[in-house]
Amino acid sequence: MVKLEELVQYAKTNGFIYQGSEIYGGLANTWDYGPLGSLLKNNIKSAWIAKFQKETKENVLLDSSILLNTDVWKASGHLGNFSDPLTECRSCNQRFRADNLIEQFDKTNADGWSNEKMYQYILSNKIPCPSCGAHDFLPIRSFNMMFQTYQGVVMDSANQIYLRPETAQGIFINFKNILRTSRKKIPFGVCQVGKSFRNEITPGNFVFRTREFEQMELEFFCKPGTEKKWFNYWREKMVSFLTSLGIKNENLSLYDHPKEALSHYSNATTDIHFKFPWGFDELWGIASRTDFDLKAHQTQSKESMEYLDPETNERYIPYVVEPSVGVERLVLSFLLNGLEMEKLDSGEDRQVLHIHPRLAPYKVAVLPLVKKEHANYANDLYLELAKTFDCIYDETQNIGKRYRRQDSIGTYLCITVDHQTLIDDTVTVRNRDSMEQIRAHVGDLKRIIEETMIF
Amino acid sequence: MVKLEELVQYAKTNGFIYQGSEIYGGLANTWDYGPLGSLLKNNIKSAWIAKFQKETKENVLLDSSILLNTDVWKASGHLGNFSDPLTECRSCNQRFRADNLIEQFDKTNADGWSNEKMYQYILSNKIPCPSCGAHDFLPIRSFNMMFQTYQGVVMDSANQIYLRPETAQGIFINFKNILRTSRKKIPFGVCQVGKSFRNEITPGNFVFRTREFEQMELEFFCKPGTEKKWFNYWREKMVSFLTSLGIKNENLSLYDHPKEALSHYSNATTDIHFKFPWGFDELWGIASRTDFDLKAHQTQSKESMEYLDPETNERYIPYVVEPSVGVERLVLSFLLNGLEMEKLDSGEDRQVLHIHPRLAPYKVAVLPLVKKEHANYANDLYLELAKTFDCIYDETQNIGKRYRRQDSIGTYLCITVDHQTLIDDTVTVRNRDSMEQIRAHVGDLKRIIEETMIF
Repeated sequence: MVKLEELVQYAKTNGFIYQGSEIYGGLANTWDYGPLGSLLKNNIKSAWIAKFQKETKENVLLDSSILLNTDVWKASGHLGNFSDPLTECRSCNQRFRADNLIEQFDKTNADGWSNEKMYQYILSNKIPCPSCGAHDFLPIRSFNMMFQTYQGVVMDSANQIYLRPETAQGIFINFKNILRTSRKKIPFGVCQVGKSFRNEITPGNFVFRTREFEQMELEFFCKPGTEKKWFNYWREKMVSFLTSLGIKNENLSLYDHPKEALSHYSNATTDIHFKFPWGFDELWGIASRTDFDLKAHQTQSKESMEYLDPETNERYIPYVVEPSVGVERLVLSFLLNGLEMEKLDSGEDRQVLHIHPRLAPYKVAVLPLVKKEHANYANDLYLELAKTFDCIYDETQNIGKRYRRQDSIGTYLCITVDHQTLIDDTVTVRNRDSMEQIRAHVGDLKRIIEETMIF
Repeated sequence: MVKLEELVQYAKTNGFIYQGSEIYGGLANTWDYGPLGSLLKNNIKSAWIAKFQKETKENVLLDSSILLNTDVWKASGHLGNFSDPLTECRSCNQRFRADNLIEQFDKTNADGWSNEKMYQYILSNKIPCPSCGAHDFLPIRSFNMMFQTYQGVVMDSANQIYLRPETAQGIFINFKNILRTSRKKIPFGVCQVGKSFRNEITPGNFVFRTREFEQMELEFFCKPGTEKKWFNYWREKMVSFLTSLGIKNENLSLYDHPKEALSHYSNATTDIHFKFPWGFDELWGIASRTDFDLKAHQTQSKESMEYLDPETNERYIPYVVEPSVGVERLVLSFLLNGLEMEKLDSGEDRQVLHIHPRLAPYKVAVLPLVKKEHANYANDLYLELAKTFDCIYDETQNIGKRYRRQDSIGTYLCITVDHQTLIDDTVTVRNRDSMEQIRAHVGDLKRIIEETMIF
C-alpha cells in the first residue's frame, strides 16, 4: 500500500484533494475536493444511497438542517457530554487530548476515565509533552466539540446555536413527521447524507479526521426484540457494500465491542476497521441504540415518540440500529485500497488506480487516435456518452501516454476512435485492469459501460 | 397558482418540507426536507450538474470547504461590505432592514443608498414602524451577514472564522489548483453545489429566503473580450434549463440591469424572476464579473492568478461569468409551477403535481392490482426498477385512490400488475398528465421510463 505522504501528493497532483484555502497558507486541516475528488465523493454517496435506501422498499431519505434548535443538543446529550479531555503544556503552550497522550505514550486505553484519573495517570507515569518534553501539564478540562455561532442580530445566549456534530439527530426529531407523511410502518429506515462539524482538538491524518466532514447515516427503526436481527442485517450489508466495491478482505477487520465496554444505551456495537497507513483504524460503525434517542427527545420535547402498530394495536417506542460512516474516510479507503505502482512485463512502471467502475471519477475516456482526423467523431461520441456517464475527452499526446494518464486516475475504459471507426462505427475499448482491447460497435457502448457499473 | 399557505401545507402533509426542529417549537426559518423533498432536491441538483457541467466538455466540478481562511473574506469584500442596513424601533424593539422599510412603505428603491441617506429618508417621509406604528427608529447600522464561529480551543480573534456566505469564493481561490491539475484551457468553467449561510435580518416567504441554503454556482473563466458572448450563452442556457423542465413562460420574466445600476465590477447582470405568490421575484442571477474576483485574490494572497495562453503566449487574468441559483428557490418554483387542482370531466377534483419526470420524486409507482395475488410479482418488479429509478410501491386501498395519491405527489407513471401480467408479463402504464393507459411488456419499461426523463 502507498504511504500517506504519497497519497496526499497523488491526490493533490491529480485534482482529487487540495489543501483548503491554500493560497492563504491554508486553514488547519481543511481540504477542498477538486474535479476528480468531487466526482468520487458524489459516486460514493450515490452508491451508498443505492444500497442503503433505494434497494430497500422500507427506507426513505431526509435532508435536515445543519442549524438546529439548541434543545435538540440538550436532549441528545451533546451539550453536556460531547467533549474531549483537554490539557495544555505549561512550558510550550501546546494543547493535547489527555486520552491521546496516555494512549500514545503508554499504549493504555483511557476510554471512559474521568479527567481527574487521566491527570493523575499522566503525573504519576511522568508522561512528557510530545512537543517539548516538559512534565508540566495543566489540569484537564472538558472541551465541548460543537462549533457555536449566533443567529440573528444580537449575540446573546438566547441566540446562540450550534453547528450539528452529527446528522442523526435531524432524523430522530423528524421521526413522527416521516411516519405521518410517508405511510411507513415499522420497520423502516431513514437515510441522510450531509455535513457535520466537530471542533476537534487534534484533527489529522489527511482527511481521516477533519473538523468539517460529511456523514452518511441510516437510522433504522424496528420493534424492540427484533433489533439483533436488524443489527446483523445492516452489519452484513456494510461489509458487502465495501467488498463488492472492491475493498480487499485483508484491508478490513471487524471489531465487535465486548458487552462490558458498550455505552449504557447500546446493546451491540461493531466497528469496521480499515488498514490505513498508520494501522487499522475506524472506517464505519454500527450501533444498536435501543430507544435511547427517541426517549430522550420525548422527555425533552414532551412530544410522544410512540408508534402504534396498526395490526396488533401495540404501542411502543421503536428501537434504532444506526450504521454511520464519513464520506471522506471512504474516499481515503478507496484511494488507498486501489492505488498501485505496477511493474509491467515490458519493465515499465504503471501507476494505476484500481477502483470499481461505479466509483471511478470517469467511467470512460474518449480518445481520437489522430486529432486532425478523428476529433469530430470523438467529440460527438463524447457528448452522447456524457449524457449518461462521467466521461473525459483527451486528444493530446500519443495514445500510450493517454492510456497511462487514464490508468493513473482510475478511468475504467478507454475508447479510441480511429480510421476504422469512420468506416464502420466500431471503436477499440481498452480495459484499465487487464489492459486488453476489444473492438465494439458504438451502439453497444452504453450497455457495455452500464454492465461494468453493477455492484 | 396555489397560495403560499396552501403550498406550505401541501409540502408538509406530503413529506416535502417540514418546519425545522418542529418538536421544539422550530428554529426561526429553518426547514427540513422530508422523503419527497430530499428526492426533489437531489433531482434538481443532478439536472443542474447534467446541463451545466456534464454537457460541456469545458466544465468540471469542485467541492470546497464551508470553513475558509478569513483572508478569503477580506479579499472578496465580504468582511467589509457584506452587510444589511439594520434599524430598530425604539418603541417595540422590533428590528428591520432599512431598505425594506423604504421599499415597502414608499415603493422606492434604496439600493446603493448610504445608511445616513436612508435614515434621513425614513425620518422626513415619516415612515412608521410596520409592527407598532411608532415613528421612533434608531440610527441605521451595518450588520454583517456572515455567521461567525471559532475554530480550535481558544475563542480569540485569531481563531475566529466564518461560515461561507457563498460558494463562489471557494472556486476563485482554487482557480490555479484546477488549472494546474485538470489540464484545462481557457475558456472553462467550475461548477459547485453546496451549503451557504447568511445571517439574514428578515428571512421569510417559506424557503425563499433562509439563513442556511444550498447554492449551485458556475464560475466560467474566459478571455477578456469574449465575456459578452459567454454571458449570452449561459443566460440562454439558464432559461432553457427552466423551460425544458416545464416552467411556464408566463411564470418567468427577465430583468437586465441597466448599465448605470451595475456593480462597479460588473459589465452585465441579468436576473431571472419567477412569479411567486407575492409577485415576480429573483430566482436566478447571472453576472459578468470581469477579473474583479481573481484580481482581488491576487492582491490579497500575492499569488499570481494569471493565465498563460499556450497558443498565443499571452498572459492575462481571465474574466468570469457567474450564473448563481439557490436550490430551495428552484424547489419552490417547480412546486408552485406544477401544483394544480383540476376539475375532471367526471366532476371530481384532482390534485396533481405537474412536474417534469426528471425532477419528479418518483418516476414510477408499482401497484399490485390485488395485493394477495399480485404483490409478489409487483415486489420483484419494484426491486428491479428501483436499481435504476426512484420508485414507490403501494398496495393499500383501491387502484383509483392510489392513482390519485401518486398524481398529487407528481409520480409520472403508475405501473399496475394484474391478472394478465402473470400470464404474459405485460402491465398497464398510466400517464399522470393525460391519465391515459397503455399496455406494455415489462422488458420495455426501462426504455419507456428513460425516455420520459430526457430534457
